[in-house]
Amino acid sequence: ITTGQKPSEECAVVGYIGNNAYTNIIFALRALQHRGQESSGIATFDGKIHIKKGMGFVSEVFRDEFLEGRIGIGHNRYSTAGSKGVENAGPFVISSSMGYIGISHNGEVTNAHDLREKLKEKGYIFYSSSDTEVMLTEIVSEINKYGIRDGIKKAMLKIKGAYALAILINDTLYALRDPFGFRPLILGKNNDGYIVASESAAIDTVSGKVIRDVKPGELIEIRETGYRSIFTIEHEKSHCMFEYVYFARPDSIIDGKEVFDVRYNIGVRLATENPVNADVVVPVPDSGRSQALGYSVYSKIPYSEGLIKNRYSDRTFILPDQESRYNAIKIKLNTIKSVINGKRVVLVDDSIVRGNTMRHIIGILRKDGATEVHVRVGSPPIIAPCYFGVDMKTKDDFIANNNSIEDIRKEIGADSLAYISIEGLKESIGMNELCLGCLTGIYPDDIPEGAKPNYT
Amino acid sequence: ITTGQKPSEECAVVGYIGNNAYTNIIFALRALQHRGQESSGIATFDGKIHIKKGMGFVSEVFRDEFLEGRIGIGHNRYSTAGSKGVENAGPFVISSSMGYIGISHNGEVTNAHDLREKLKEKGYIFYSSSDTEVMLTEIVSEINKYGIRDGIKKAMLKIKGAYALAILINDTLYALRDPFGFRPLILGKNNDGYIVASESAAIDTVSGKVIRDVKPGELIEIRETGYRSIFTIEHEKSHCMFEYVYFARPDSIIDGKEVFDVRYNIGVRLATENPVNADVVVPVPDSGRSQALGYSVYSKIPYSEGLIKNRYSDRTFILPDQESRYNAIKIKLNTIKSVINGKRVVLVDDSIVRGNTMRHIIGILRKDGATEVHVRVGSPPIIAPCYFGVDMKTKDDFIANNNSIEDIRKEIGADSLAYISIEGLKESIGMNELCLGCLTGIYPDDIPEGAKPNYT
Amino acid sequence: ITTGQKPSEECAVVGYIGNNAYTNIIFALRALQHRGQESSGIATFDGKIHIKKGMGFVSEVFRDEFLEGRIGIGHNRYSTAGSKGVENAGPFVISSSMGYIGISHNGEVTNAHDLREKLKEKGYIFYSSSDTEVMLTEIVSEINKYGIRDGIKKAMLKIKGAYALAILINDTLYALRDPFGFRPLILGKNNDGYIVASESAAIDTVSGKVIRDVKPGELIEIRETGYRSIFTIEHEKSHCMFEYVYFARPDSIIDGKEVFDVRYNIGVRLATENPVNADVVVPVPDSGRSQALGYSVYSKIPYSEGLIKNRYSDRTFILPDQESRYNAIKIKLNTIKSVINGKRVVLVDDSIVRGNTMRHIIGILRKDGATEVHVRVGSPPIIAPCYFGVDMKTKDDFIANNNSIEDIRKEIGADSLAYISIEGLKESIGMNELCLGCLTGIYPDDIPEGAKPNYT
Amino acid sequence: ITTGQKPSEECAVVGYIGNNAYTNIIFALRALQHRGQESSGIATFDGKIHIKKGMGFVSEVFRDEFLEGRIGIGHNRYSTAGSKGVENAGPFVISSSMGYIGISHNGEVTNAHDLREKLKEKGYIFYSSSDTEVMLTEIVSEINKYGIRDGIKKAMLKIKGAYALAILINDTLYALRDPFGFRPLILGKNNDGYIVASESAAIDTVSGKVIRDVKPGELIEIRETGYRSIFTIEHEKSHCMFEYVYFARPDSIIDGKEVFDVRYNIGVRLATENPVNADVVVPVPDSGRSQALGYSVYSKIPYSEGLIKNRYSDRTFILPDQESRYNAIKIKLNTIKSVINGKRVVLVDDSIVRGNTMRHIIGILRKDGATEVHVRVGSPPIIAPCYFGVDMKTKDDFIANNNSIEDIRKEIGADSLAYISIEGLKESIGMNELCLGCLTGIYPDDIPEGAKPNYT
Ligand SMILES: Nc1ncnc2c1ncn2[C@@H]1O[C@H](COP(=O)(O)OP(=O)(O)O)[C@@H](O)[C@H]1O
Ligand SMILES: Nc1ncnc2c1ncn2[C@@H]1O[C@H](COP(=O)(O)OP(=O)(O)O)[C@@H](O)[C@H]1O
Ligand SMILES: Nc1ncnc2c1ncn2[C@@H]1O[C@H](COP(=O)(O)OP(=O)(O)O)[C@@H](O)[C@H]1O
Ligand SMILES: Nc1ncnc2c1ncn2[C@@H]1O[C@H](COP(=O)(O)OP(=O)(O)O)[C@@H](O)[C@H]1O
Ligand code: SF4
Ligand code: SF4
Ligand code: SF4
Ligand code: SF4
Ligand SMILES: [Mg+2]
Ligand SMILES: [Mg+2]
Ligand SMILES: [Mg+2]
Ligand SMILES: [Mg+2]
Repeated sequence: ITTGQKPSEECAVVGYIGNNAYTNIIFALRALQHRGQESSGIATFDGKIHIKKGMGFVSEVFRDEFLEGRIGIGHNRYSTAGSKGVENAGPFVISSSMGYIGISHNGEVTNAHDLREKLKEKGYIFYSSSDTEVMLTEIVSEINKYGIRDGIKKAMLKIKGAYALAILINDTLYALRDPFGFRPLILGKNNDGYIVASESAAIDTVSGKVIRDVKPGELIEIRETGYRSIFTIEHEKSHCMFEYVYFARPDSIIDGKEVFDVRYNIGVRLATENPVNADVVVPVPDSGRSQALGYSVYSKIPYSEGLIKNRYSDRTFILPDQESRYNAIKIKLNTIKSVINGKRVVLVDDSIVRGNTMRHIIGILRKDGATEVHVRVGSPPIIAPCYFGVDMKTKDDFIANNNSIEDIRKEIGADSLAYISIEGLKESIGMNELCLGCLTGIYPDDIPEGAKPNYT
Repeated sequence: ITTGQKPSEECAVVGYIGNNAYTNIIFALRALQHRGQESSGIATFDGKIHIKKGMGFVSEVFRDEFLEGRIGIGHNRYSTAGSKGVENAGPFVISSSMGYIGISHNGEVTNAHDLREKLKEKGYIFYSSSDTEVMLTEIVSEINKYGIRDGIKKAMLKIKGAYALAILINDTLYALRDPFGFRPLILGKNNDGYIVASESAAIDTVSGKVIRDVKPGELIEIRETGYRSIFTIEHEKSHCMFEYVYFARPDSIIDGKEVFDVRYNIGVRLATENPVNADVVVPVPDSGRSQALGYSVYSKIPYSEGLIKNRYSDRTFILPDQESRYNAIKIKLNTIKSVINGKRVVLVDDSIVRGNTMRHIIGILRKDGATEVHVRVGSPPIIAPCYFGVDMKTKDDFIANNNSIEDIRKEIGADSLAYISIEGLKESIGMNELCLGCLTGIYPDDIPEGAKPNYT
Repeated sequence: ITTGQKPSEECAVVGYIGNNAYTNIIFALRALQHRGQESSGIATFDGKIHIKKGMGFVSEVFRDEFLEGRIGIGHNRYSTAGSKGVENAGPFVISSSMGYIGISHNGEVTNAHDLREKLKEKGYIFYSSSDTEVMLTEIVSEINKYGIRDGIKKAMLKIKGAYALAILINDTLYALRDPFGFRPLILGKNNDGYIVASESAAIDTVSGKVIRDVKPGELIEIRETGYRSIFTIEHEKSHCMFEYVYFARPDSIIDGKEVFDVRYNIGVRLATENPVNADVVVPVPDSGRSQALGYSVYSKIPYSEGLIKNRYSDRTFILPDQESRYNAIKIKLNTIKSVINGKRVVLVDDSIVRGNTMRHIIGILRKDGATEVHVRVGSPPIIAPCYFGVDMKTKDDFIANNNSIEDIRKEIGADSLAYISIEGLKESIGMNELCLGCLTGIYPDDIPEGAKPNYT
Repeated sequence: ITTGQKPSEECAVVGYIGNNAYTNIIFALRALQHRGQESSGIATFDGKIHIKKGMGFVSEVFRDEFLEGRIGIGHNRYSTAGSKGVENAGPFVISSSMGYIGISHNGEVTNAHDLREKLKEKGYIFYSSSDTEVMLTEIVSEINKYGIRDGIKKAMLKIKGAYALAILINDTLYALRDPFGFRPLILGKNNDGYIVASESAAIDTVSGKVIRDVKPGELIEIRETGYRSIFTIEHEKSHCMFEYVYFARPDSIIDGKEVFDVRYNIGVRLATENPVNADVVVPVPDSGRSQALGYSVYSKIPYSEGLIKNRYSDRTFILPDQESRYNAIKIKLNTIKSVINGKRVVLVDDSIVRGNTMRHIIGILRKDGATEVHVRVGSPPIIAPCYFGVDMKTKDDFIANNNSIEDIRKEIGADSLAYISIEGLKESIGMNELCLGCLTGIYPDDIPEGAKPNYT
């Protein structure tokens, strides 16, 4: 049994150029472990290419070997079903007439199936079923024709979907983001050199300073001596709202907004939109804390920690007992009796996907003496799949899909239930240029027919 | 490099009798993973003894096999240097003329060296250097002479130090606690049967109800049909204050006091004893949260989360780079800029042992804009070693050892620094019967000459 | 599927005193790998005891660590069902009032069950179900009373069955053999010091010289400065004939007889007792070679290699295919067509236990053109279990048990079949003092009721 | 320390079409384990491609998973330095506009460097440094243009060097051999379907019948319903003599010659060319046996087994002792005293590469009483590197390189030393169409400048 029931991001991306490239990348990947826990890889270049990939946590993969080089890219990956195994782990590196080209990818190419077929017709061959390999091949094929800069631009015009990339071309590093800007990508600098990473927390971890976000549609070229913007393909932006709501670390600043602030604002907004008389505001740890703080400050209902999360519960846990009568959620969360007992509780979490965890939490709160439980959710109901890099594909997974709010309230056993409004969410983020696809079913770009996690 | 710098508890103890003994024990051990992360073991009995032990997390050790039986004991262990390896993992089980006797032990026998020598003189033989083996042999030797109950009582009169035990004697379970009550031990019940465990959180995790603490000096006999107190050796109690301050989970209730409440009270007391003008109260997560909440409520300075702890940082992390120029603490904690920037911060944590982490945290708070940092510590200064089961042996490890509070303040770079008073700590716990040995150097019992973690 | 169908010896024993004890023991254990392949262990002493044990081949177990000390004992073990796992691996080492006592054991104690019960009554406790632990405890209990020499003698008078032991008592090494001399044990010397081992091939491997066999019933004390015989309990000897027939390496000299010579003599005797007209003598490799050479020389029928053994077939091979339609024997042996085709073949092997392999070999010989196949077996029919350290316990395993020679011939599909006579075997070995229990059902000593591989 | 000092073949190749493809391939790979021990892989096709690769022995790699499909290819690989790791393990499989194309390769492409550069110029990209990937890309690029049959033919005209291939193109199997026929490849059939493999022993192992060798330069197309020869590029043949001399299993029949027979003939020829007065002919096991039998029969000097090879010595053995004073050869071979003592020995082995083993053997023979040692070698002196798939690249490795026969005799300490003549070797094989490059320095084809094991 796995205890995780939240959707999973598919990747973390890092690029580094300067001293101690390998060590800097390891630290950055470790700071971004939450974006992909199944496998990790690093490729460095010092005239030759050096690659190390492995299954497991960053701390397990990079132990014995040292990779030489003043430039490198790194990748954490969340394996989707059917594509497990080291051979699918990033980064992908090839050699071509241009030399070595490596790529670390966060996102999902929606027209990978079509692109692959067209590239095959042109004679290209594929070793895996990965959309990253398709993107890499497309980029290489255009670079071969038009050179690096124009080639990448041409490729971008053909590749649809979400991609934030760290690209290594011999001794030069590139950062690239799709024109919608679905996935975050940020540029920074520390004493050793330049870093590009999925989240600013990675830059903090190497004692660096943020320079700025890579702009949607922008290609940045980074050398040891400096960086410059090569081009930007302008387009209406649509940043994934779920990065703010759940995925990103609260200490990251994404596209100018600090994630903690956004979540705090969401809490304030929830309190404005859906006030309730209660005695204590309790977050579902860890993700509900920022929102609960906002709710508490605005509502003046005291904040406290009424739930404890077992810190070992992120590790998959396979029970030897076949029956597995025990619910894994029991291992994950427990109450603090004195905070809960005899209290009317406002329970705050970031989002509800399937609802199982929430039903269980309400159950234990009541058992341990909560007189009322009012649930406040920091995201509007999720009702549609994501095609841009988040592992939510089946409509049936979503409790909100065919149920009214009242249905859900009953299902989870709450005294009251309220989600933040879409308008409220936008204002909390402070941005209109958002992807809201999984909330509305309306996507910022067409979804090609065969778009599924893994086309073959 | 390891990121942990806090002292480590040496064990978790579980006993179970009833249905699904194996599964119940696994869940309980997992809830008590924080008390020992290096190895785990379970022994069950169904006429025969079944044992499974292994290095690593509970979730890694118990995967493939299923152990039959309606009774069992379990153990998590924190290996001390020089005694790593599966052969030293608990629980210990032997067969003797009485049948099978197994033991799970939390604590430390201070006169193990003497006892071992005396037992050797009587002809007993030892397979390991463990104090648990000595205790088990002593118990068996007395049981052989006097029967189970009197034998255990006789043995207790000889064994000095700290021990909380789950004992399996064929199909009967026993719970036993040393007369001082250093280490916690609690009895509970769920639908499947009876459980004894180091902390009440384990009972919650198996959906059980707490019955009561095992009393210091008490032997409880537990059968499927019920339990009864066999005897209690009365003595002045001295519960380890550090269980409340740091070790135990905040959701556990130990000797009648909820750990969260104690820590909250500590926070209140810190605010009373050491007020300060400031803008925000920030805990060092996770252990400083309860205290910071208390501090905030009493001082009326708003509480917020200004530090984020990387959730993967509890895993040991060995850098392939020999130089290891990067401090591991950077990976562990990062700031939330908007909470810190331009603010006078009250920083609250449970205790300071070596001071490195605190100095680092203050550094990053200042770098990210904190104008003042006032440190409030939920434990009096630690100045002396522990001989009762906590891995603090070298005086030189303690920053408070030969330094004044002012020295320490300078060393860690705080604007002000205050520890809770011993009196304040006692009142926060609400109990006088405490061990305060490591705070005062005065121990509740004599420490025999050769008392060291592992005598041979 | 496992390809092995021969009975398995249960252990190899090594002891070393002098320079580079650890390295010398590793080499010796590797030379004796055939006597036990499941686990290996070494214990050395340098004031402290150092132990390393592990599952797998010698080359897999001793890789990373180095054990200090000028004295040590080593052990290879063939796990019998139900006692797998590192905790049962040898050697066993304990500390007692005499200091450290370690033991490496080859053989089987027939009265272990009784001894264990009696020792339990005296108060001793047991951590495993191993007969070695019983023997060790018995020895220690007597040593405690009577000192080392007399204690060991007293223990020997109580312990029944087969045992060849390397014993470490602090800085002194002892070699001990049961009065029957079932299992071999030999003393040698190389430039670094003294060695005791199960077979002389181990002494050769460390570039040593054989000194002499340890005598049945003898205790030898070995120090760096020399060795001396302490006592010898005289008794009618009964060396296991199966060591000569199959177990031991052909290059070993056991109790004065070179194993190759014995097997060669067996071949000669087979040719005398059971001549046949044929074109070629073909051994079943590897174990049939020595006998086939003898058969060829006496019979004047040319010797050739008509069968090839796959050298990788000793590794257990678990097929992922459930059906497992393919016989593992196919992987093990193949013919050399030109040697076989159109020929009348005399096929020579050491022994027949279950008969499966032999039936298969005859099948492929005929398929590849052999016109006649005459089987000659270098051991009389095996019809009874062994209680002295060889893993043959179930009568039903033996094809010879309830079948006449003619029945077996039909069963395996041979044109003729002959076993060496018991008389012939004795003369080939050149010794009368043999155990022939599994050939006759008459054992050199009483077999206590509960004698089974693992009593509990 | 490694005990192996013989050159190593680089691969085994298997293809199967029919029932139980996966199981048949596993058995065949296991029979060919000697051609590559570092990694193994299988790819099957059933509409989708299924791949399993891993480091280690066949028995270690294929344990848990089952690969579906009625067609598949398999590969054993001997890693050359710098190219270890699963990512370089065979077989290679790609998808292209033609569907799936997989390839298992034995041999070495001498112009891989040039081909790779040219393919890069055409826009192709490479994921590894392997010559197999180059060959596969070349084949795919031509197939894309000319279809399967003509495409493969075109590719063959460009690819230089040695290659024996099993190719899977969707549901059809192909067998292909370079026009020189350096490496063996043979077609067979069993009850389940058709098999193609590097050696006939693999066909025997799946209870199959040999159909015929794949001809040098021939492409055979194999379907479930039958096979047919598509084309044959005629060229002067040059089969690798070293397959007969050392690599292949003695029970294999390669290009019409049984390996055992060839080696036996070599022994006869050695006795003709270089007779000597002696008492016993002793092979260096295992590879010298066939030759020694021939020598004995012709010379009438009796054959015996005077050396025993430790069967566990093929496993790499890393000593924990840094000094490693002990020579690994000691572990590998030991004498049988009675065969050697007081005898004039003719010692026969297949070849001498570096000479260390031979010197050691002669040393132990003398120590154990051999009065004379006359060495007879079943291959002419090796003096030049191989560029066609055998891991002998550095001239300095060869003892025969700058030494006269007399020098070598002294160096190894023999009483006399003789190699078979080149003429004698050819006649023993019974074939003129041989590669003798490493014996003469004259190669059957030009060696392009950059030809090295791994070009990048
Ligand atoms: N399984 C658990 N779930 C939640 N909290 C725990 C658990 N185990 C221990 N804790 C709490 O975590 C605190 C220690 O965590 P933290 O401060 O994050 O780490 P550190 O040991 O580095 O100080 C302890 O005070 C303890 O109360
Ligand atoms: N390395 C990290 N350190 C601290 N917080 C993190 C880290 N990675 C992710 N997070 C935060 O943790 C939250 C998810 O944690 P939590 O709610 O405890 O687990 P779950 O995924 O089960 O809901 C996310 O919202 C994210 O912001
Ligand atoms: N699977 C196998 N079964 C039997 N013989 C084999 C097998 N594989 C290879 N051989 C033979 O073993 C010989 C090499 O073995 P050997 O001489 O013992 O080892 P080394 O490689 O050290 O010389 C080769 O000549 C080959 O013919
Ligand atoms: N390390 C070794 N080196 C060489 N020969 C050995 C070694 N160990 C055991 N032997 C011999 O190998 C023979 C058994 O091998 P073999 O007949 O090939 O296998 P099986 O056990 O399947 O019959 C034994 O008779 C023994 O004498
Ligand atoms: S559909 Fe939802 S999860 Fe996917 S990118 Fe858009 S907002 Fe993010
Ligand atoms: S000395 Fe300190 S840590 Fe040890 S038991 Fe006493 S209070 Fe607890
Ligand atoms: S019974 Fe047989 S195998 Fe056992 S010791 Fe006697 S002769 Fe050897
Ligand atoms: S050079 Fe030697 S090893 Fe290489 S193919 Fe030619 S004969 Fe064979
Ligand atoms: Mg959450
Ligand atoms: Mg802490
Ligand atoms: Mg055999
Ligand atoms: Mg050889």
